[in-house]
Amino acid sequence: MAYSSGNHAQGVALAASRHGLPCVILMPADAPAVKIANTRAYGAEVMLYDRATEDRDAIGAELAAARGLALVKPFDDAQVIAGQGTVGLEIASQAAEAGISAASVLTCCGGGGLTAGIALALEARAPQLSVRPCEPAGFDDTARSLISGKRERNAATTGSICDAIVTPSPGEITFPILHRLCGPGLVVTDDEACRAVALAFHHLRIVLEPGGAVALAAALFRPDLPDTVICTASGGNVDAGLFTDILTRFGA
Amino acid sequence: MAYSSGNHAQGVALAASRHGLPCVILMPADAPAVKIANTRAYGAEVMLYDRATEDRDAIGAELAAARGLALVKPFDDAQVIAGQGTVGLEIASQAAEAGISAASVLTCCGGGGLTAGIALALEARAPQLSVRPCEPAGFDDTARSLISGKRERNAATTGSICDAIVTPSPGEITFPILHRLCGPGLVVTDDEACRAVALAFHHLRIVLEPGGAVALAAALFRPDLPDTVICTASGGNVDAGLFTDILTRFGA
Repeated sequence: MAYSSGNHAQGVALAASRHGLPCVILMPADAPAVKIANTRAYGAEVMLYDRATEDRDAIGAELAAARGLALVKPFDDAQVIAGQGTVGLEIASQAAEAGISAASVLTCCGGGGLTAGIALALEARAPQLSVRPCEPAGFDDTARSLISGKRERNAATTGSICDAIVTPSPGEITFPILHRLCGPGLVVTDDEACRAVALAFHHLRIVLEPGGAVALAAALFRPDLPDTVICTASGGNVDAGLFTDILTRFGA
Repeated sequence: MAYSSGNHAQGVALAASRHGLPCVILMPADAPAVKIANTRAYGAEVMLYDRATEDRDAIGAELAAARGLALVKPFDDAQVIAGQGTVGLEIASQAAEAGISAASVLTCCGGGGLTAGIALALEARAPQLSVRPCEPAGFDDTARSLISGKRERNAATTGSICDAIVTPSPGEITFPILHRLCGPGLVVTDDEACRAVALAFHHLRIVLEPGGAVALAAALFRPDLPDTVICTASGGNVDAGLFTDILTRFGA
């Protein structure tokens, strides 16, 4: 099994290990060391690539063909979207329990797998909730695509502290779903994402990576949001060094 | 309402604020700054005392009498024990769901409120699970009391990084429950508690204070435990400075 990078690498590695299948994970060379180590700890072979100069889809396709592996893409895969959509089922159920009749659901959005899955689940179970994808400034391909109606690309492929959710553009499968069900997008700065990481440490007692905190950052720092906000916190793969640096700079 | 210190101060302050009641919280002067700040943020008046030289029960009783307040003790209170016992209900329910027929339930134990509550809940709902209180080395009053059959005291009142769960001795109400249902106790060093904090950061993505990580530390570092271990993680009131220090020293 081969897999292209991303926040979900550990999930694929774990699934392969549970099923006794060999697993190759293709990760950016600048991924957090903890993510690489944890993925290897699940028994996966980790291959690194340079996300500034190499195309992971091309590498993944070539590797899958050469070694007879099934390729599981990180977001442009119907089953991945469906799996991430279970978050939307949980949101719908908890919102009903809390008596929330209308709200904005903020998602941390990279290629749009999680966002599309949540949007599909809410369309079926809680259509009164609207999904607003959140992205780091400078990498707001989804926000711009939702405005233009076509898949826009980011100018750069790296350069945000929220690298885990930086992708070149919305997916082929995810974008039509996003376009039909989501928006408008929200954008936060790297500093706002870091302040959300520090706030989650102090008040929620959970560990978030900056890319997993952009929705919380939008909830905190975009004052034009409606009253009721539901927020996803979607990743904690952050090295101790970066985390302590964020707490030192933003945690007072 | 007055309240003597501890990890539960914020809960009492929140409850008072929800009910529109005035609230005085009595906390050790060496409590984490974040805990003091969060308690004040709930609208409570925070009074500090020196836990090395002053007796919080005496201060609390005097203050309650002078100002006409109801005193809510941190563990020696039947309703506090019952409230914390809901953790035991959750454990019983999740253990049944997971098909666990026998296990050791490790608890972070100070005065024994949480431990007694869990033990009572499991006695009713999952009597095949046994409760083992975990404490920091040098402050193992409960472990020694379970051996001797009477309430032993610690030689010192401060001096562990797990200060949040350091109490002089098991409670009057809690100890008979602990003696009937729990043991033997487990003891971990401060370094082991810190390693558990770092491991929880890296692998569980939750923020624990050292005192809330002693059960996890016992699960990790006491190799004589039976196969199935259920572990409570019971507090995350840790300042950014201490947390980054722990990650720096133990988080590699």
